[in-house]
Amino acid sequence: MPPEHGVDSPAMDFDLPAAIAVLERTPDVLRSLLSGLPSAWIDATEGPETWSPYVIVGHLVHGERTDWIPRAGIILAQGPDRRFTPYDRFAQLHESQGKSLADLLDELARLRAANLATLAGWRLTEDQLALAGEHPELGPVTLRQLLATWVAHDLGHVAQTARVMAKQYRQAVGPWRAYLPILGR
Amino acid sequence: MPPEHGVDSPAMDFDLPAAIAVLERTPDVLRSLLSGLPSAWIDATEGPETWSPYVIVGHLVHGERTDWIPRAGIILAQGPDRRFTPYDRFAQLHESQGKSLADLLDELARLRAANLATLAGWRLTEDQLALAGEHPELGPVTLRQLLATWVAHDLGHVAQTARVMAKQYRQAVGPWRAYLPILGR
Repeated sequence: MPPEHGVDSPAMDFDLPAAIAVLERTPDVLRSLLSGLPSAWIDATEGPETWSPYVIVGHLVHGERTDWIPRAGIILAQGPDRRFTPYDRFAQLHESQGKSLADLLDELARLRAANLATLAGWRLTEDQLALAGEHPELGPVTLRQLLATWVAHDLGHVAQTARVMAKQYRQAVGPWRAYLPILGR
Repeated sequence: MPPEHGVDSPAMDFDLPAAIAVLERTPDVLRSLLSGLPSAWIDATEGPETWSPYVIVGHLVHGERTDWIPRAGIILAQGPDRRFTPYDRFAQLHESQGKSLADLLDELARLRAANLATLAGWRLTEDQLALAGEHPELGPVTLRQLLATWVAHDLGHVAQTARVMAKQYRQAVGPWRAYLPILGR
Protein backbone atom coordinates (compact mmCIF):
# COMPACT_ATOMS: atom_id res chain seq x y z
CA MET A 1 0.00 0.00 0.00
CA PRO A 2 1.57 3.32 -0.97
CA PRO A 3 2.13 5.56 2.05
CA GLU A 4 -0.52 8.03 0.92
CA HIS A 5 -3.25 5.40 1.28
CA GLY A 6 -4.94 4.26 4.49
CA VAL A 7 -3.78 6.99 6.81
CA ASP A 8 -6.30 7.51 9.62
CA SER A 9 -8.54 10.38 8.72
CA PRO A 10 -10.01 12.99 11.04
CA ALA A 11 -13.46 14.34 10.08
CA MET A 12 -13.25 16.28 6.81
CA ASP A 13 -14.00 19.95 6.64
CA PHE A 14 -16.73 20.76 4.16
CA ASP A 15 -15.27 21.52 0.74
CA LEU A 16 -17.70 22.44 -2.05
CA PRO A 17 -15.90 20.77 -4.99
CA ALA A 18 -15.40 17.55 -2.97
CA ALA A 19 -19.08 17.60 -1.97
CA ILE A 20 -20.22 18.11 -5.56
CA ALA A 21 -17.98 15.21 -6.65
CA VAL A 22 -20.11 12.90 -4.50
CA LEU A 23 -23.46 14.49 -5.32
CA GLU A 24 -22.94 14.20 -9.06
CA ARG A 25 -22.12 10.47 -8.76
CA THR A 26 -25.12 9.30 -6.74
CA PRO A 27 -27.61 8.81 -9.61
CA ASP A 28 -25.08 6.63 -11.46
CA VAL A 29 -24.28 4.66 -8.31
CA LEU A 30 -27.94 3.77 -7.82
CA ARG A 31 -28.38 3.02 -11.49
CA SER A 32 -25.34 0.70 -11.44
CA LEU A 33 -26.62 -1.03 -8.34
CA LEU A 34 -30.31 -1.40 -9.25
CA SER A 35 -31.07 -0.96 -12.94
CA GLY A 36 -32.41 -4.14 -14.51
CA LEU A 37 -32.40 -6.20 -11.29
CA PRO A 38 -35.23 -8.70 -10.67
CA SER A 39 -38.06 -7.23 -8.58
CA ALA A 40 -37.15 -9.57 -5.71
CA TRP A 41 -34.20 -7.22 -5.08
CA ILE A 42 -35.91 -3.93 -5.98
CA ASP A 43 -38.89 -4.47 -3.70
CA ALA A 44 -37.08 -6.17 -0.82
CA THR A 45 -37.36 -4.54 2.62
CA GLU A 46 -35.99 -5.05 6.13
CA GLY A 47 -39.49 -5.79 7.46
CA PRO A 48 -42.76 -3.93 8.05
CA GLU A 49 -42.57 -0.12 7.71
CA THR A 50 -39.05 -0.23 6.25
CA TRP A 51 -38.01 0.92 2.80
CA SER A 52 -37.21 -1.04 -0.32
CA PRO A 53 -34.61 0.15 -2.86
CA TYR A 54 -37.57 1.34 -4.96
CA VAL A 55 -38.93 3.47 -2.10
CA ILE A 56 -35.45 4.85 -1.32
CA VAL A 57 -34.96 6.08 -4.90
CA GLY A 58 -38.40 7.75 -4.74
CA HIS A 59 -37.37 9.45 -1.50
CA LEU A 60 -34.23 10.85 -3.14
CA VAL A 61 -36.31 12.14 -6.07
CA HIS A 62 -38.61 13.94 -3.64
CA GLY A 63 -35.61 15.51 -1.89
CA GLU A 64 -34.37 16.91 -5.21
CA ARG A 65 -37.74 18.61 -5.74
CA THR A 66 -38.46 19.98 -2.29
CA ASP A 67 -35.51 19.82 0.08
CA TRP A 68 -31.92 20.72 -0.72
CA ILE A 69 -31.97 23.44 -3.33
CA PRO A 70 -35.24 25.06 -2.16
CA ARG A 71 -33.83 25.27 1.38
CA ALA A 72 -30.53 26.65 0.08
CA GLY A 73 -32.59 29.27 -1.75
CA ILE A 74 -34.35 30.27 1.48
CA ILE A 75 -30.99 30.71 3.21
CA LEU A 76 -29.45 32.70 0.36
CA ALA A 77 -32.45 35.03 0.10
CA GLN A 78 -32.04 36.01 3.80
CA GLY A 79 -35.66 37.15 3.86
CA PRO A 80 -37.56 37.96 7.07
CA ASP A 81 -38.80 34.34 7.42
CA ARG A 82 -35.99 31.82 7.00
CA ARG A 83 -37.86 28.83 8.32
CA PHE A 84 -37.76 25.79 6.05
CA THR A 85 -40.93 24.02 4.96
CA PRO A 86 -41.01 20.75 6.94
CA TYR A 87 -39.77 17.86 4.84
CA ASP A 88 -42.16 15.00 4.12
CA ARG A 89 -40.15 11.83 4.55
CA PHE A 90 -43.02 9.71 3.27
CA ALA A 91 -44.03 11.70 0.19
CA GLN A 92 -42.56 9.08 -2.15
CA LEU A 93 -45.18 6.60 -0.98
CA HIS A 94 -47.72 8.49 -3.13
CA GLU A 95 -45.49 10.48 -5.49
CA SER A 96 -43.92 7.35 -6.97
CA GLN A 97 -47.34 5.95 -7.91
CA GLY A 98 -47.40 4.42 -11.35
CA LYS A 99 -43.66 4.95 -11.91
CA SER A 100 -41.20 2.19 -12.64
CA LEU A 101 -37.77 2.07 -11.02
CA ALA A 102 -36.31 3.05 -14.40
CA ASP A 103 -38.56 6.14 -14.43
CA LEU A 104 -37.39 7.12 -10.94
CA LEU A 105 -33.71 6.59 -11.76
CA ASP A 106 -34.08 8.79 -14.85
CA GLU A 107 -35.93 11.43 -12.84
CA LEU A 108 -33.26 11.42 -10.14
CA ALA A 109 -30.47 11.87 -12.70
CA ARG A 110 -32.32 14.71 -14.44
CA LEU A 111 -33.28 16.59 -11.26
CA ARG A 112 -29.86 16.15 -9.68
CA ALA A 113 -28.09 17.49 -12.77
CA ALA A 114 -30.41 20.52 -12.82
CA ASN A 115 -29.90 21.14 -9.10
CA LEU A 116 -26.13 20.93 -9.38
CA ALA A 117 -26.28 23.39 -12.29
CA THR A 118 -28.25 25.76 -10.05
CA LEU A 119 -25.69 25.30 -7.28
CA ALA A 120 -22.75 25.96 -9.63
CA GLY A 121 -24.52 29.05 -10.99
CA TRP A 122 -24.63 30.56 -7.50
CA ARG A 123 -20.80 30.66 -7.31
CA LEU A 124 -21.06 30.51 -3.54
CA THR A 125 -18.58 32.42 -1.40
CA GLU A 126 -17.36 31.43 2.07
CA ASP A 127 -19.52 34.21 3.48
CA GLN A 128 -22.60 32.79 1.80
CA LEU A 129 -21.81 29.28 3.03
CA ALA A 130 -21.88 30.68 6.57
CA LEU A 131 -25.40 32.17 6.19
CA ALA A 132 -28.09 30.52 8.29
CA GLY A 133 -31.69 29.42 7.92
CA GLU A 134 -34.09 28.04 10.50
CA HIS A 135 -34.81 24.32 10.57
CA PRO A 136 -38.32 23.68 11.94
CA GLU A 137 -36.97 21.28 14.56
CA LEU A 138 -33.19 21.71 14.69
CA GLY A 139 -33.09 25.51 14.86
CA PRO A 140 -30.39 27.59 13.12
CA VAL A 141 -28.37 25.74 10.46
CA THR A 142 -25.91 27.10 7.94
CA LEU A 143 -25.84 26.67 4.18
CA ARG A 144 -22.55 24.79 4.61
CA GLN A 145 -24.25 22.33 6.99
CA LEU A 146 -27.19 21.92 4.59
CA LEU A 147 -24.89 21.02 1.70
CA ALA A 148 -22.81 18.64 3.84
CA THR A 149 -26.06 16.97 4.90
CA TRP A 150 -27.12 16.56 1.27
CA VAL A 151 -23.90 14.55 0.72
CA ALA A 152 -24.17 12.45 3.89
CA HIS A 153 -27.87 11.82 3.18
CA ASP A 154 -27.04 10.48 -0.30
CA LEU A 155 -24.34 8.19 1.08
CA GLY A 156 -26.57 7.02 3.93
CA HIS A 157 -29.22 5.93 1.47
CA VAL A 158 -26.70 4.21 -0.80
CA ALA A 159 -25.50 2.26 2.25
CA GLN A 160 -29.10 1.52 3.24
CA THR A 161 -29.92 0.21 -0.24
CA ALA A 162 -26.99 -2.20 -0.20
CA ARG A 163 -27.85 -3.27 3.36
CA VAL A 164 -31.51 -3.97 2.53
CA MET A 165 -30.36 -6.14 -0.36
CA ALA A 166 -27.69 -7.97 1.66
CA LYS A 167 -30.20 -8.86 4.35
CA GLN A 168 -32.32 -10.81 1.89
CA TYR A 169 -29.64 -13.51 2.09
CA ARG A 170 -29.53 -13.56 5.90
CA GLN A 171 -30.67 -17.18 5.85
CA ALA A 172 -29.17 -18.25 2.52
CA VAL A 173 -25.61 -17.59 3.76
CA GLY A 174 -25.96 -20.25 6.47
CA PRO A 175 -23.12 -20.26 9.03
CA TRP A 176 -21.35 -17.35 7.28
CA ARG A 177 -23.89 -15.06 8.91
CA ALA A 178 -21.46 -14.82 11.84
CA TYR A 179 -18.90 -13.12 9.59
CA LEU A 180 -21.26 -10.63 7.95
CA PRO A 181 -22.01 -7.81 10.40
CA ILE A 182 -24.18 -6.09 7.77
CA LEU A 183 -26.82 -8.79 8.26
CA GLY A 184 -27.35 -7.78 11.89
CA ARG A 185 -27.63 -4.01 11.31
CA MET B 1 -46.93 3.28 -5.14
CA PRO B 2 -48.09 0.40 -7.35
CA PRO B 3 -49.23 -2.60 -5.30
CA GLU B 4 -46.28 -4.69 -6.45
CA HIS B 5 -43.80 -2.34 -4.76
CA GLY B 6 -42.96 -2.16 -1.07
CA VAL B 7 -44.57 -5.38 0.06
CA ASP B 8 -42.81 -6.73 3.14
CA SER B 9 -40.31 -9.32 2.07
CA PRO B 10 -39.32 -12.51 3.87
CA ALA B 11 -35.71 -13.64 3.42
CA MET B 12 -35.05 -14.62 -0.20
CA ASP B 13 -34.17 -18.16 -1.17
CA PHE B 14 -30.90 -18.34 -3.05
CA ASP B 15 -31.47 -18.12 -6.80
CA LEU B 16 -28.42 -18.33 -9.05
CA PRO B 17 -29.53 -15.87 -11.78
CA ALA B 18 -30.60 -13.29 -9.16
CA ALA B 19 -27.27 -13.74 -7.35
CA ILE B 20 -25.29 -13.30 -10.56
CA ALA B 21 -27.30 -10.13 -11.34
CA VAL B 22 -25.83 -8.55 -8.19
CA LEU B 23 -22.32 -9.98 -8.58
CA GLU B 24 -21.95 -8.67 -12.13
CA ARG B 25 -22.94 -5.14 -11.06
CA THR B 26 -20.54 -4.66 -8.12
CA PRO B 27 -17.46 -3.50 -10.07
CA ASP B 28 -19.55 -0.82 -11.81
CA VAL B 29 -21.15 0.25 -8.53
CA LEU B 30 -17.74 0.85 -6.96
CA ARG B 31 -16.47 2.56 -10.09
CA SER B 32 -19.50 4.88 -10.14
CA LEU B 33 -19.05 5.66 -6.47
CA LEU B 34 -15.27 6.15 -6.34
CA SER B 35 -13.64 6.69 -9.72
CA GLY B 36 -12.06 10.12 -10.00
CA LEU B 37 -12.90 11.24 -6.46
CA PRO B 38 -10.42 13.38 -4.52
CA SER B 39 -8.11 11.32 -2.29
CA ALA B 40 -9.74 12.83 0.81
CA TRP B 41 -12.68 10.50 0.05
CA ILE B 42 -10.69 7.52 -1.26
CA ASP B 43 -8.37 7.32 1.72
CA ALA B 44 -10.86 8.24 4.43
CA THR B 45 -11.37 5.74 7.26
CA GLU B 46 -13.55 5.33 10.34
CA GLY B 47 -10.52 5.57 12.62
CA PRO B 48 -7.39 3.51 13.44
CA GLU B 49 -7.37 -0.05 12.06
CA THR B 50 -10.44 0.56 9.89
CA TRP B 51 -10.59 0.42 6.12
CA SER B 52 -10.69 3.17 3.54
CA PRO B 53 -12.57 2.79 0.22
CA TYR B 54 -9.15 2.11 -1.35
CA VAL B 55 -8.45 -0.75 1.08
CA ILE B 56 -11.96 -2.17 0.60
CA VAL B 57 -11.54 -2.38 -3.18
CA GLY B 58 -8.20 -4.14 -2.68
CA HIS B 59 -9.91 -6.61 -0.35
CA LEU B 60 -12.51 -7.42 -3.00
CA VAL B 61 -9.75 -7.94 -5.59
CA HIS B 62 -8.02 -10.41 -3.26
CA GLY B 63 -11.30 -12.30 -2.78
CA GLU B 64 -11.67 -12.71 -6.54
CA ARG B 65 -8.23 -14.30 -6.67
CA THR B 66 -8.30 -16.56 -3.65
CA ASP B 67 -11.72 -16.95 -2.10
CA TRP B 68 -14.99 -17.49 -3.93
CA ILE B 69 -14.23 -19.41 -7.10
CA PRO B 70 -11.29 -21.38 -5.67
CA ARG B 71 -13.49 -22.49 -2.76
CA ALA B 72 -16.32 -23.37 -5.13
CA GLY B 73 -13.80 -25.46 -7.06
CA ILE B 74 -12.83 -27.35 -3.89
CA ILE B 75 -16.50 -28.12 -3.20
CA LEU B 76 -17.24 -29.22 -6.77
CA ALA B 77 -14.18 -31.50 -6.93
CA GLN B 78 -15.44 -33.42 -3.83
CA GLY B 79 -11.89 -34.66 -3.21
CA PRO B 80 -10.80 -36.36 0.04
CA ASP B 81 -9.79 -33.02 1.63
CA ARG B 82 -12.50 -30.39 1.23
CA ARG B 83 -11.11 -27.93 3.73
CA PHE B 84 -10.77 -24.38 2.40
CA THR B 85 -7.51 -22.49 2.62
CA PRO B 86 -8.01 -19.87 5.38
CA TYR B 87 -8.79 -16.50 3.88
CA ASP B 88 -6.39 -13.63 4.55
CA ARG B 89 -8.56 -10.62 5.30
CA PHE B 90 -5.54 -8.33 5.37
CA ALA B 91 -3.76 -9.46 2.20
CA GLN B 92 -4.70 -6.27 0.37
CA LEU B 93 -2.52 -4.27 2.76
CA HIS B 94 0.51 -5.59 0.88
CA GLU B 95 -1.02 -6.79 -2.40
CA SER B 96 -2.30 -3.33 -3.32
CA GLN B 97 1.19 -1.85 -3.00
CA GLY B 98 2.00 0.55 -5.79
CA LYS B 99 -1.46 0.31 -7.33
CA SER B 100 -3.78 3.24 -7.86
CA LEU B 101 -7.49 3.04 -7.15
CA ALA B 102 -8.07 3.05 -10.92
CA ASP B 103 -5.76 0.00 -11.23
CA LEU B 104 -7.71 -1.83 -8.51
CA LEU B 105 -11.11 -0.98 -10.04
CA ASP B 106 -9.93 -2.29 -13.42
CA GLU B 107 -8.52 -5.42 -11.80
CA LEU B 108 -11.76 -6.06 -9.92
CA ALA B 109 -13.83 -5.71 -13.09
CA ARG B 110 -11.54 -8.03 -15.04
CA LEU B 111 -11.30 -10.73 -12.35
CA ARG B 112 -15.03 -10.60 -11.58
CA ALA B 113 -15.94 -11.02 -15.25
CA ALA B 114 -13.58 -13.99 -15.55
CA ASN B 115 -14.94 -15.58 -12.36
CA LEU B 116 -18.55 -15.17 -13.49
CA ALA B 117 -17.61 -16.76 -16.82
CA THR B 118 -16.16 -19.72 -14.89
CA LEU B 119 -19.33 -19.93 -12.80
CA ALA B 120 -21.58 -19.84 -15.87
CA GLY B 121 -19.44 -22.52 -17.54
CA TRP B 122 -20.12 -24.91 -14.67
CA ARG B 123 -23.89 -24.90 -15.44
CA LEU B 124 -24.54 -25.80 -11.82
CA THR B 125 -27.39 -28.14 -10.93
CA GLU B 126 -29.44 -28.08 -7.73
CA ASP B 127 -27.58 -31.22 -6.63
CA GLN B 128 -24.23 -29.51 -7.08
CA LEU B 129 -25.42 -26.43 -5.17
CA ALA B 130 -26.14 -28.74 -2.24
CA LEU B 131 -22.59 -30.18 -2.15
CA ALA B 132 -20.51 -29.22 0.89
CA GLY B 133 -16.98 -28.17 1.70
CA GLU B 134 -15.32 -27.63 5.05
CA HIS B 135 -14.77 -24.11 6.29
CA PRO B 136 -11.70 -23.97 8.60
CA GLU B 137 -13.73 -22.30 11.36
CA LEU B 138 -17.41 -22.63 10.46
CA GLY B 139 -17.42 -26.32 9.56
CA PRO B 140 -19.55 -27.78 6.74
CA VAL B 141 -20.94 -25.23 4.29
CA THR B 142 -22.68 -25.78 0.96
CA LEU B 143 -21.87 -24.35 -2.43
CA ARG B 144 -25.24 -22.54 -2.32
CA GLN B 145 -24.24 -20.88 0.96
CA LEU B 146 -20.83 -19.93 -0.45
CA LEU B 147 -22.39 -18.22 -3.46
CA ALA B 148 -25.00 -16.43 -1.32
CA THR B 149 -22.15 -15.22 0.90
CA TRP B 150 -20.27 -13.87 -2.13
CA VAL B 151 -23.34 -11.68 -2.87
CA ALA B 152 -23.89 -10.53 0.73
CA HIS B 153 -20.15 -9.85 1.11
CA ASP B 154 -20.20 -7.59 -1.97
CA LEU B 155 -23.21 -5.68 -0.71
CA GLY B 156 -21.76 -5.39 2.78
CA HIS B 157 -18.63 -3.75 1.42
CA VAL B 158 -20.61 -1.41 -0.84
CA ALA B 159 -22.56 -0.33 2.25
CA GLN B 160 -19.32 0.01 4.23
CA THR B 161 -17.74 2.17 1.53
CA ALA B 162 -20.69 4.58 1.52
CA ARG B 163 -20.73 4.62 5.34
CA VAL B 164 -17.00 5.40 5.63
CA MET B 165 -17.49 8.31 3.25
CA ALA B 166 -20.63 9.62 4.98
CA LYS B 167 -18.87 9.66 8.34
CA GLN B 168 -16.29 12.13 7.07
CA TYR B 169 -19.04 14.76 7.35
CA ARG B 170 -20.04 13.78 10.89
CA GLN B 171 -19.05 17.25 12.10
CA ALA B 172 -19.74 19.22 8.92
CA VAL B 173 -23.47 18.37 9.04
CA GLY B 174 -23.86 20.18 12.39
CA PRO B 175 -27.23 19.61 14.08
CA TRP B 176 -28.44 17.34 11.24
CA ARG B 177 -26.29 14.61 12.76
CA ALA B 178 -29.33 13.68 14.85
CA TYR B 179 -31.23 12.73 11.66
CA LEU B 180 -28.47 10.68 10.03
CA PRO B 181 -28.22 7.28 11.75
CA ILE B 182 -25.43 6.28 9.33
CA LEU B 183 -23.07 8.66 11.17
CA GLY B 184 -23.38 6.69 14.40
CA ARG B 185 -22.84 3.22 12.91
